[in-house]
Amino acid sequence: MNAEQDDPVGAFVAGPRIRIAGRDGGPLAGLSFAAKDLFDVAGTATGGGNPDWPTGRPVATRHAWAVQTLLDAGATLVGKTITDEVSLGILGENSFDGTPLNPRAPGRVPGGSSSGSAAAVAAGLCDTALGTDTGGSVRVPSSFCGLHGIRPTHGCINLAGMMAQAPTSDTTGWFARDAGTFARVSAVLLGEPIAARRPRQLLVATDAFGFVDPAVADALRPMVERLGSLVGTVREELLAPQGLSVWARAQRTLQSSESWLTFQDWLDASNPRMAFSVARGLVQASAIPETDRVWAALMREEARARLRHLLGEDTILCLPTTPFAAPERGLPLSTLQPLRDRITCLCALGGLAGHPQVSLPGATTREGLPVGLSIVGPRGADALLIAVATEMERLT
Amino acid sequence: MNAEQDDPVGAFVAGPRIRIAGRDGGPLAGLSFAAKDLFDVAGTATGGGNPDWPTGRPVATRHAWAVQTLLDAGATLVGKTITDEVSLGILGENSFDGTPLNPRAPGRVPGGSSSGSAAAVAAGLCDTALGTDTGGSVRVPSSFCGLHGIRPTHGCINLAGMMAQAPTSDTTGWFARDAGTFARVSAVLLGEPIAARRPRQLLVATDAFGFVDPAVADALRPMVERLGSLVGTVREELLAPQGLSVWARAQRTLQSSESWLTFQDWLDASNPRMAFSVARGLVQASAIPETDRVWAALMREEARARLRHLLGEDTILCLPTTPFAAPERGLPLSTLQPLRDRITCLCALGGLAGHPQVSLPGATTREGLPVGLSIVGPRGADALLIAVATEMERLT
Repeated sequence: MNAEQDDPVGAFVAGPRIRIAGRDGGPLAGLSFAAKDLFDVAGTATGGGNPDWPTGRPVATRHAWAVQTLLDAGATLVGKTITDEVSLGILGENSFDGTPLNPRAPGRVPGGSSSGSAAAVAAGLCDTALGTDTGGSVRVPSSFCGLHGIRPTHGCINLAGMMAQAPTSDTTGWFARDAGTFARVSAVLLGEPIAARRPRQLLVATDAFGFVDPAVADALRPMVERLGSLVGTVREELLAPQGLSVWARAQRTLQSSESWLTFQDWLDASNPRMAFSVARGLVQASAIPETDRVWAALMREEARARLRHLLGEDTILCLPTTPFAAPERGLPLSTLQPLRDRITCLCALGGLAGHPQVSLPGATTREGLPVGLSIVGPRGADALLIAVATEMERLT
Repeated sequence: MNAEQDDPVGAFVAGPRIRIAGRDGGPLAGLSFAAKDLFDVAGTATGGGNPDWPTGRPVATRHAWAVQTLLDAGATLVGKTITDEVSLGILGENSFDGTPLNPRAPGRVPGGSSSGSAAAVAAGLCDTALGTDTGGSVRVPSSFCGLHGIRPTHGCINLAGMMAQAPTSDTTGWFARDAGTFARVSAVLLGEPIAARRPRQLLVATDAFGFVDPAVADALRPMVERLGSLVGTVREELLAPQGLSVWARAQRTLQSSESWLTFQDWLDASNPRMAFSVARGLVQASAIPETDRVWAALMREEARARLRHLLGEDTILCLPTTPFAAPERGLPLSTLQPLRDRITCLCALGGLAGHPQVSLPGATTREGLPVGLSIVGPRGADALLIAVATEMERLT
C-alpha cells in the first residue's frame, strides 16, 4: 500500500509505520489506536513534531503509561501521529511534518496540537487515538473534526512517557468517533466503569455562548436543548465573572512561563529549527515578568474557586468548545493570532481549574463544518461526563 | 567527482553546482569565483540560506549586478555558497544547510554570514567570492578564515539582484587569498584602477585594541608595526569616544529595525522554518521602540562625524577586525550571544558610518588561529585601502 492509500489524510508521522498488537482478550480487543508523537513507544524515538527534538535524546526503552495501558487492554497500536511542534500550537499546522487534512472540513485546519490523532480517528484510520491537552490540544481538534474528545481531570492520568509542555496544565486525552468506543476506551484509561448516570443540574455558560460566532451558537442550540432535557434542571450562569479574556491571559501567562522552563535548555544547547510562530511564542514566553506570573497564579485560584462554586458535586456546565469552526489552512500569522487568542478565551478553564471536559460532536454550522459542545464536570467526575456523552448519542 | 571531493569544506549550497563561464579575454580571465546565495543568478532560485525563502518567489531572470560584472570581466562562476539564514548571523552556523568548515581552523566556525564564500576561497576552491556585509558578514569571516576581505564604501557598489537585509547598512563585499587577486577583482568591482598609493597618516584605535582578547592584540602587533612603517606617521586615537558598546547598540538597533521591516511580510505570510536564534533576533527586532530607533539614528550621525573628523581625506585607521579568533562550532546560544555582542562592538562602525574597511590576513594567535587587522579609510577611498593591502603583502 502506498503512503497515500495508507494515510489519505497525512495523519501519521513519516517513516515506517509502527504497529504493536494489543494483548489478547482484553476489554479493548479488536480496537485500533494511534498515539500522538509525544508519547514514548519503546524502541523508537519520540519525534515531538520537531526535527531537532529527537537529536541527542535516547530512544525510548519503555512505552508511555497510556500506550502500555491501551495495549494491555487489547487495543492495537497502528501508528504515531503528527503533532504541532513540541505541542505548541492550536491549529494543527506543522511546517516540518505537514498539516493533516481535516476529513470533515477539507481545506480547513484539523486543529492542534493533537492534529494527526484527530485526523486519523475522523478519517476512520483507527478507532481511538491518544492526544495531549495543555491549552486545548484535544478539545480544539475534537471540535474542528467533529469527534468525541476528553481532557481528563488534571492529575488523574499517569503522564509517564508523555512529553511535557507546561506541567501544571498538561493532560493526556483521547478521541473517538462514536460514544460507545469513547466509553470503552475511557473506562480503561480512567480505570473505572462508565455507569449510566446523570448530573442533577446543567449550567449554560452565557458569557461563553455570547463570546462565540453567532453561527456557532446557532449550531449548538439544538444540542444544548437536548442536553437540558436529558439533565432536567437548567440554569444560565457566567462561567468567568472576571472575564473570559482575563482567564485567557492568566492561562497564557502560566502556560507560556512553564513551557519556557521546559524548553529553554534544549533551545540553548541545540538552537533547533522551528516555525517562526513557535519560536516567537517561546521568545515572548522568555520575557514574561515574574509579576505577571504571580498575578496569573492568583487568578488561577479564583478560577478554581469559581468552578468549585459552580459545579459542586453533581452539576455540569456546557459551553462551546471553540468560538468558530475550523479556519482555513495557510492563513497569515497576523490573521491567525487573534483566532488563537479567541480560542484561548474558551479553553483557558481547562488548564486553570483542571476540571474534566468532554467535547461532544453532532453540531454543524450552515456551511456544514463541525463544532463541538463541551461539558465540564466536577474534578474527578470524568466518568459522569462520558456517561452523558453516551446518553447524548442515544438521543440523536 | 563526488560531493566530498568536489567540496571538501561544505561551502557550496546543495543541488547541482552552477557554472557559468566568464567572457573571453577580460581582466579577470582565468579567475574563478563563487557567489553567496543571496545574489541572483539568472535561471536559478536565490536560496537566501533558508528553505522557505525561495517558496513562492520567481526564479531570477537576470544576474545580480556584481555577478554580471565579474562574468563580463572574464571570471567564471563556479557555484553558489552557503550563507547564514537570510544573512542574519555572524558565526556561519546554518542549521539547514550546514556549517562550512573553516579551512584555517578546523573545529571552529568559519564566521558569517558569508560563510561559504569565505570557506570556498580559503580552501582554494575558487579565487574570489562575493559576500554581503551589513553588520560584519564579510569582515568577520575574513578574520576567522585568514583572508583579504572588503566592505566597500556604503553605496558605491550597485546592489541590484542582491537580497536585502538592512538597506542603510547593506553592502556587497568580496574575499581573496592573496593581495594580487584581491586588487584585480577590486579594480573591476570598484570600477577604478588600484594605483600604488599610500595614506599620509595611520591612526591606531586604542579603544578597539584595548577591547580585544590580549592574545589577539599580541598577534596583531607586528602587523600594526609593519603598517606603521609603511605609512610613516602613526598616532593613537579613540575610535568611539561615546563607547564601542554604545556604537554597537546603535548599529544593532538600526540594523534590527530595518531587518524587521525587510522580513515581516514574509514571516507573516509564510511562517517560515528558522533556527530558534534567527527567529529570536527577529522577534526582538519587532519589539524595538521607536524612541530607541530615533536615538540610534542620532548616534549614527555622531559616529559619522567622528570618522569624518578622524580620517579627513588621506588618513587610515586600523583596528582588530574581531575581538577573538574563530570560536568553536556548536557552542550553546547562551555562550554565543556575548561573543556576538562583542563582535558587534568592533564591526558597528561599518554600518553606522559607511566607510570602506578591508580586513588584512597574516596574523595568527599562538594557537595558530588567524585573526584579521582592519584598515578603514575615508569614504570613497576603497582603492587606497586595496593599495595598502598590496603593499602590506609585499612587506611580509
